[in-house]
Order: sequence, then structure tokens, then C-alpha cells
Amino acid sequence: MKRTAFFISDGTGITAEALGNSLLAQFGSIQFNKITLPYIDTIEKAVEAVDTIDQAGKEDGYRPIVFDTVVDEAIREVISTSSAYKIDVFSAFLKPLELELGSHSSYSVGKSHSINEVNTYMDRIESVNFAIANDDGGKTQHYDKADIILTGVSRCGKTPTCLYMALQFGIRAANYPLTDDDLNRTHLPDALEAYRDKLFGLTIDPFQLASIRHERRANSRYASLDQCEDEVQSVERMFRQQQLPFINTTHFSIEEIATRIIAQKGLQRRIK
Amino acid sequence: MKRTAFFISDGTGITAEALGNSLLAQFGSIQFNKITLPYIDTIEKAVEAVDTIDQAGKEDGYRPIVFDTVVDEAIREVISTSSAYKIDVFSAFLKPLELELGSHSSYSVGKSHSINEVNTYMDRIESVNFAIANDDGGKTQHYDKADIILTGVSRCGKTPTCLYMALQFGIRAANYPLTDDDLNRTHLPDALEAYRDKLFGLTIDPFQLASIRHERRANSRYASLDQCEDEVQSVERMFRQQQLPFINTTHFSIEEIATRIIAQKGLQRRIK
Repeated sequence: MKRTAFFISDGTGITAEALGNSLLAQFGSIQFNKITLPYIDTIEKAVEAVDTIDQAGKEDGYRPIVFDTVVDEAIREVISTSSAYKIDVFSAFLKPLELELGSHSSYSVGKSHSINEVNTYMDRIESVNFAIANDDGGKTQHYDKADIILTGVSRCGKTPTCLYMALQFGIRAANYPLTDDDLNRTHLPDALEAYRDKLFGLTIDPFQLASIRHERRANSRYASLDQCEDEVQSVERMFRQQQLPFINTTHFSIEEIATRIIAQKGLQRRIK
Repeated sequence: MKRTAFFISDGTGITAEALGNSLLAQFGSIQFNKITLPYIDTIEKAVEAVDTIDQAGKEDGYRPIVFDTVVDEAIREVISTSSAYKIDVFSAFLKPLELELGSHSSYSVGKSHSINEVNTYMDRIESVNFAIANDDGGKTQHYDKADIILTGVSRCGKTPTCLYMALQFGIRAANYPLTDDDLNRTHLPDALEAYRDKLFGLTIDPFQLASIRHERRANSRYASLDQCEDEVQSVERMFRQQQLPFINTTHFSIEEIATRIIAQKGLQRRIK
């Protein structure tokens, strides 16, 4: 059975997607064709969206599921004329929240992922710049300004995790790759020793590491299972010997790695 | 009036935050103290969370608002014993969705931001690597593999937008900064000319640009309002002369810039 799911918003669609994906993920046996329709902010666009939805329903032979986070009631009414099964976030929760807060909602569009404050924007930009400037051990002289320093073998997920932390949470994350040379020593690299409290290790299943490295340099020694097994074994030994906190990234998404590290280290987010 | 809002999840908390922020953004007159409690995946942690919630309520003199995306019913029940006003996503929507889909929910925890497929993970990693390798015009020889090439003056938002597109959507985004030299010519830089169809311009209010550049190099010519006005005027003229699509980033968040470009160019996401 194939069902089409629409995430409809008058803004970016990010909230509708997050909510919809959360709910749909609970139905693993059904294959969903997911379509995001962002910036549905006029009656005309809503009418077009209804056409698109109804067309998909005809093709599937099942009515589509619509996750709707449109704020404007007139636009939402148009969307509700479609044949879809509709999950309407603002209808469900906004009125009761108004009562609870004793305040009227502003019904202003696209607030949640809009630019709130210039400071937040600056924090994101600065954190992204920091992550790029301090990626891959290239520079180590700014570690005093880092909130966290991720370390581990090449391709274990350090860079995307740092960038995600920067973009999503405004956290300044550096990363330092541990090479064969580093792993053959019994002490931490000098650049890291002074910042022990900021260190967090990443490790990964050697098979997955080999497969990721293979994408980059097929059939190289670097990507061989032997090499990956050696490195992972050494790095985990180092983490234990040096009593560094670490996480195995194999079964985690970048979001999970980032949020688990933040929770475990109690890092302060600059963006909430 | 200050109210505390909790985003509670047995996973990352990202869905609870997105939904909660969307709803709270509609009440601009109220100041919310926002606290995310992720990975509340045991009864013990739920009991602790209830303590934290109730404590906040006492301090505020108002009951907290809880946005709950916990999947497990037993944990959710513990959380519902708190004094908070609770918005419970799964209670509200999961049962009706089960009926609509004629299928039982798996009630499995943390599905939505977990690692779905190795391919998705690879796409994200490859896209992040692409964005970093092709940041700031450093390399131009891989533009044939780019999905999009952002261009504009220094500090107008190109780099974070590229990285966001990579992480969130698996889109391969390069960026090329236009310098004074580029802007004084009447044609596009050679590196860009062959990839006209992939180009998208960013522009920005000169005051905001000056303020952003000032953070980087205070009191420099680079950060002066004169220089910023000149560059912005020239870049917008170039975009118009060359008939490049462009967007003014001044009042947009990175999420909005990225999703608007994707919508306008009809870019295909590798991650949905």
C-alpha cells in the first residue's frame, strides 16, 4: 500500500515535516510518498495545493494524509476542502493554548523558523564559521573558544555533527581527527591535552566505517576492514585509558549524536 | 508574565521543539523560558522530569506548558501527573491516524530523527563534504556536480545556507563570493558562466551587512557602510543584468533562505 503524505505550511514547512515524520514513522509497514508544500500563503496557492492533493489521492486510490501548520484560517479552510485526511496542528492546539495563556494568538505567519533576533543570527553564523575554521584539526589555537571538541578516527561523523551543533544550537564545536600516529601513543595529542574537559569521543562500527570510507576512496588501505578494525580498537582503548566520554555513532543520526552529546555534557545552547 | 515551556521527548526533542516553538511564537506578548528535556525514555527519568516541571511552576507562579512527543504510554502517563498544561502530540493524533491508515502504530521510540537508511546518512555526509570543499569559491572544478551555486558578496549568508541545505536536505550546494574585482566587470566570473542554470544570488541590506562584517573585522573598510552599500548596489545590478534569480536575506532565517531557494529552483531533495 502506498499513501501520499503532504506537509503543508505558510512558512518553511519544517514544523509540519518534523511532526508528520514523527507520526508516520510509527507506521513502518506503510510506504509514504512525502511531499512538502511550503509557503502556501495565498488563497490561490492553497487552491493549487488542493488540486495537487486530490490528484495524488486519485492516483493512489487512497486519500492522502495532510499535515497542516498553516496559521491563516482562510487558507486553512481552503485546504480543508481537499479530499485528504487532515491533521491540523493549529486547529487542535491553538485555541486551548489561548485559553491557558489568557492571551490571543497573533495568527502571524511563518514565525517559528523566521529570524527572531539579530543576535541569534550572529550566533549561528559565528558558530558555523568556528566549525569550519576548526574542522579536521586544521587549526588548534582557538580551542580555548570551543564549547566542545569532538575527536575520533577519520569518517566517524565528527564534521557533520559539529556543523549541526553550530547551525541548530549555536554551539562552537571543533573537531580533531586521531591518526595512526596519535593512536600509537599512550598519551593524548598535545593540542588536546590542555582541553580535556571539552573533549568528546566518537566511535563507530568498523564495518560501517569501511563502507563510508569506501565511498571516498574505493579499495584503498584506508577503507579496508583491517585498517578500520585496527583504528576503532585503538581509538576506543585510548578513550577508555584517557577516561574520555564517548559515543558509538553507528546507529545514530547526526541529530541524535549532537543532542546526546549536548545532554551528556550539559552544553549551553545559544539558540533555543 | 514569564511562563516556562518544556519540550519533552524520548528522542532528540527536535519535533517537540519545532511544534512548541511554532505555537508559542503566536504569543509574542509572553516571555517563555524554554527548556528541552530529551531522551526521557525511562520511568525514572520521567519522574525526575515531573519534579523539574513542578519546581518551575512554583517559581513562576504559573503552571508550565509541556509539549510532549513521548511515544511510550507509560512514560507519558508519568509526565501527565505533573502540574503542567500539557500538549500531547501522540495522544492527539496517533489513534485517529491508526484508524485512517487501518494499521497499528508500532509505538517505537525516537523513530523520526533516527538513522533511517545508510544511504540517507551517506547523502548527508557527501553533501556536507561537498559544501565544505566548495565553500567560498576555493574550488570551482566540481561545479558540474553541484545542485546549486550560491553567489553574492562576502557575509551575505552563503556558507550557512549551503551547509543547512546539505545537512537538512542532502543538497550539494557550492558558493562563490563576488569580490570588488568581479563586481566591476560587466560579465560573470568565468568559473560561473558555464553554470548559469545553477546560480542563485543572495543580497542583503547594507546596514545589516555592515553590522555582520563589523563582528568579524571591527572598524575596517570591509565593514564600513560605504563599502557595504557599494558592494550591495553592484551585486544587485549584476544579478539583474545577468538575469540571475536572487533573494534578499535580510529578514530571513537560514531555514527560510534555504527552503525558498529550493522551492523557487525546484531542487530535488535527497533527504525527505
